[in-house]
Amino acid sequence: MSVSPPDTDRVVAAVGARMTMAERLFDDLRARTPDPGGAGVSRPSYGAGEQIGHDLMRVAAEDVGLEVTTDAAGNLYATLPGLDRAAPRWISGSHFDSVPNGGNFDGAAGALAALAAVAALKDLGIRPRGDMTAMAIRAEECSSWFTGQHGGHLGSRAALGLLQPSELDTAIHLATGATLGQSIDAAGFDAGAVRHGPAPLSAQNVAGFAELHIEQGPVLIGARAPAGIVTGIRGTIRARSAHCLGAYSHSGAVPQEMRQDAVLATAELIHRIDEHCAALRRRGNDIVFAVGRLHTDPKMDSLSKVPGEATFTIDLRSQETDVLAELHALLGTLAAKIGKARNVHIDLGRLALAEPTIMDAAFRARLQEAAAALGIKAPSVPCGAGHDAAEFVRAGIPACMIFVRNTGESHNPMEHMDFTDFRCGLLLLTWFLAAMANVSG
Amino acid sequence: MSVSPPDTDRVVAAVGARMTMAERLFDDLRARTPDPGGAGVSRPSYGAGEQIGHDLMRVAAEDVGLEVTTDAAGNLYATLPGLDRAAPRWISGSHFDSVPNGGNFDGAAGALAALAAVAALKDLGIRPRGDMTAMAIRAEECSSWFTGQHGGHLGSRAALGLLQPSELDTAIHLATGATLGQSIDAAGFDAGAVRHGPAPLSAQNVAGFAELHIEQGPVLIGARAPAGIVTGIRGTIRARSAHCLGAYSHSGAVPQEMRQDAVLATAELIHRIDEHCAALRRRGNDIVFAVGRLHTDPKMDSLSKVPGEATFTIDLRSQETDVLAELHALLGTLAAKIGKARNVHIDLGRLALAEPTIMDAAFRARLQEAAAALGIKAPSVPCGAGHDAAEFVRAGIPACMIFVRNTGESHNPMEHMDFTDFRCGLLLLTWFLAAMANVSG
Repeated sequence: MSVSPPDTDRVVAAVGARMTMAERLFDDLRARTPDPGGAGVSRPSYGAGEQIGHDLMRVAAEDVGLEVTTDAAGNLYATLPGLDRAAPRWISGSHFDSVPNGGNFDGAAGALAALAAVAALKDLGIRPRGDMTAMAIRAEECSSWFTGQHGGHLGSRAALGLLQPSELDTAIHLATGATLGQSIDAAGFDAGAVRHGPAPLSAQNVAGFAELHIEQGPVLIGARAPAGIVTGIRGTIRARSAHCLGAYSHSGAVPQEMRQDAVLATAELIHRIDEHCAALRRRGNDIVFAVGRLHTDPKMDSLSKVPGEATFTIDLRSQETDVLAELHALLGTLAAKIGKARNVHIDLGRLALAEPTIMDAAFRARLQEAAAALGIKAPSVPCGAGHDAAEFVRAGIPACMIFVRNTGESHNPMEHMDFTDFRCGLLLLTWFLAAMANVSG
Repeated sequence: MSVSPPDTDRVVAAVGARMTMAERLFDDLRARTPDPGGAGVSRPSYGAGEQIGHDLMRVAAEDVGLEVTTDAAGNLYATLPGLDRAAPRWISGSHFDSVPNGGNFDGAAGALAALAAVAALKDLGIRPRGDMTAMAIRAEECSSWFTGQHGGHLGSRAALGLLQPSELDTAIHLATGATLGQSIDAAGFDAGAVRHGPAPLSAQNVAGFAELHIEQGPVLIGARAPAGIVTGIRGTIRARSAHCLGAYSHSGAVPQEMRQDAVLATAELIHRIDEHCAALRRRGNDIVFAVGRLHTDPKMDSLSKVPGEATFTIDLRSQETDVLAELHALLGTLAAKIGKARNVHIDLGRLALAEPTIMDAAFRARLQEAAAALGIKAPSVPCGAGHDAAEFVRAGIPACMIFVRNTGESHNPMEHMDFTDFRCGLLLLTWFLAAMANVSG
């Protein structure tokens, strides 16, 4: 394919003109979706706050003059029609739902950036080859609102045909007790159509996906950059309920070699994984490790007892499939070896694996070109958390992500995004989409 | 001093004759002090179950023809008068109170063994040089029954003048809310006399103390020995509320080097202490280590958060003062070093220190002589838990301890002592006290 670069000055002018709309929408959204218990926002998946975001975007998109539709799962599409309506479309977007007591920009920044970018393309008089769509995605934060069995990212997976029909019945809303299917119907959409398909998006009808998102870590602060170009989304190995079983005994009267100490075994396991990860990072590999939860049994534990039990979680993330495979093997080896040496049983439980997701190299190169043309510092950054973009990649659709600097915290009312930083991210996205709109395949 | 060895055959016969009394008293005691909620026994310090033990001992001692008295704190003394009533006395004994849902023999074995041994000496027609007393001690398990500020081992410390008068006001009964002083008065004794002294026992009027106790660990099982001769009571370093403070963050989005992970820091601290202790044991030093409690904050922790906080306990025990000093220094160094390297703050809190207590070498040699004469396998064993004997040593009174094999568990209804093993311990104690009774100073 060949791409003619956009006129950078015109892109800057068009984005500048659409910043007012974007800022007003962010302010309206924050004002209308307050968290009942705190300083943040609350937008439950398939709940009132999420719907307010979709309604705001629909009204604004209609004002711009875009075609607005929804799919059976309630995802919203605001489309600048292409010259060839049958050609594969481009999509940019993100989610409107939030975690409880979350920040205003996690998700919404990418949905409203997509709207502003597509609006700017329209303002510039660009007629893309295929449709150019800003998408508001449902239920990306569903793990905060739905328990039971489900694979997360419900809205994008439904749109891409990746949602298992059984998830409509096994994902259960934490507050209402309704199934996902019932929740979709109650929100005014059509779970039956989601169940029976066909899904609206596929590798056949989508040419690419671009997602802008507020960063959830401090890498861009450290890099003193307003925006970043995501290299890939880390895969994970997760143990939700790892368990070390030893035996309780007297912490003074029993010789060390006769003990079955669950804490000393668990501490060794954690420290050895930690050391192995540090060695991998020194070799240049990408790997992070956390044990978010660690507990002895509060009903049984005591200062003067050898602890007979410990429960803990494991969260390992890497952009490299082979690093995750190496750690998966190491976990099993260490658990067996330490268990044998210390006369305890370490059961890591089910190790949930998610493969790393690589962002498209050609798209990343184009974003770097955009950054150079626009004079925006936008380093390559890894992405540690899951995003809808990963689901597009899993469906065989090339994708890219732009991060905007977060000067506060993530999943937290302290989340903060300067609009000057958002403008930089929006410029990159608009320039990129303008370039992609002109692709002649 | 010189000691004429007892006539071993006569000691064996006298002990055999008194075993019936001892076994009946153990059975009565178990039957009359059941735990309301379980299969074990319950004898609260200064409560009904403890008093039942003292009453049983009083009646049995009067039957034997011993002089029975109590002190202001309620400790009971059953005495075979010496030739010189003003000469330093010998005391053997232990406590009658138990932990909640405890075993029948922890404490009671030593009190009733002392009674049976002194009775056997009387049966043998021995007139000791100074008084020979079986002592039933109060409130050794007081940490299970009294909260607030106190130094433990309340009965022996009161008798020895080691109890701070303030403890009478600051130790608070968990069930009744009464102070220790009120509890002593309510049990029929005299807290005012405890407060104002003088204490009845001192290094001036006590020549030595011998305590038989059921073992609280499995060392004698491993040694296939019915009894053991205690080398010393381990000293301790204890942290009741150690704390590692880092910062919560996203377990995927934040680079490892920018994290302040409280669990990885705590795991390293625990594992390094563990490794140091293992190295000390390989060098022949005595040291055991446990972290009985370890928790992230259940209100804040999550699989996908870097843990910002961990709380834990430390229990280090050794018979060697210099080993404890080395570990005390190591704890401070490691906490500072790991805290700095990992950008967390490790606060070990108040490190409570208790010095090791060495059992008297001459007494231990005499007990080894007894074991040889009686043909009883009685290896030297360390003692990991605290006992009243340690308080006698702290008061400047030489002491020794005999352990009897525990084929069950400790502080637990599963505690079990075979009477054939108890007989071996009682033989050692009786032979030893007979030897000490004949000491010409």
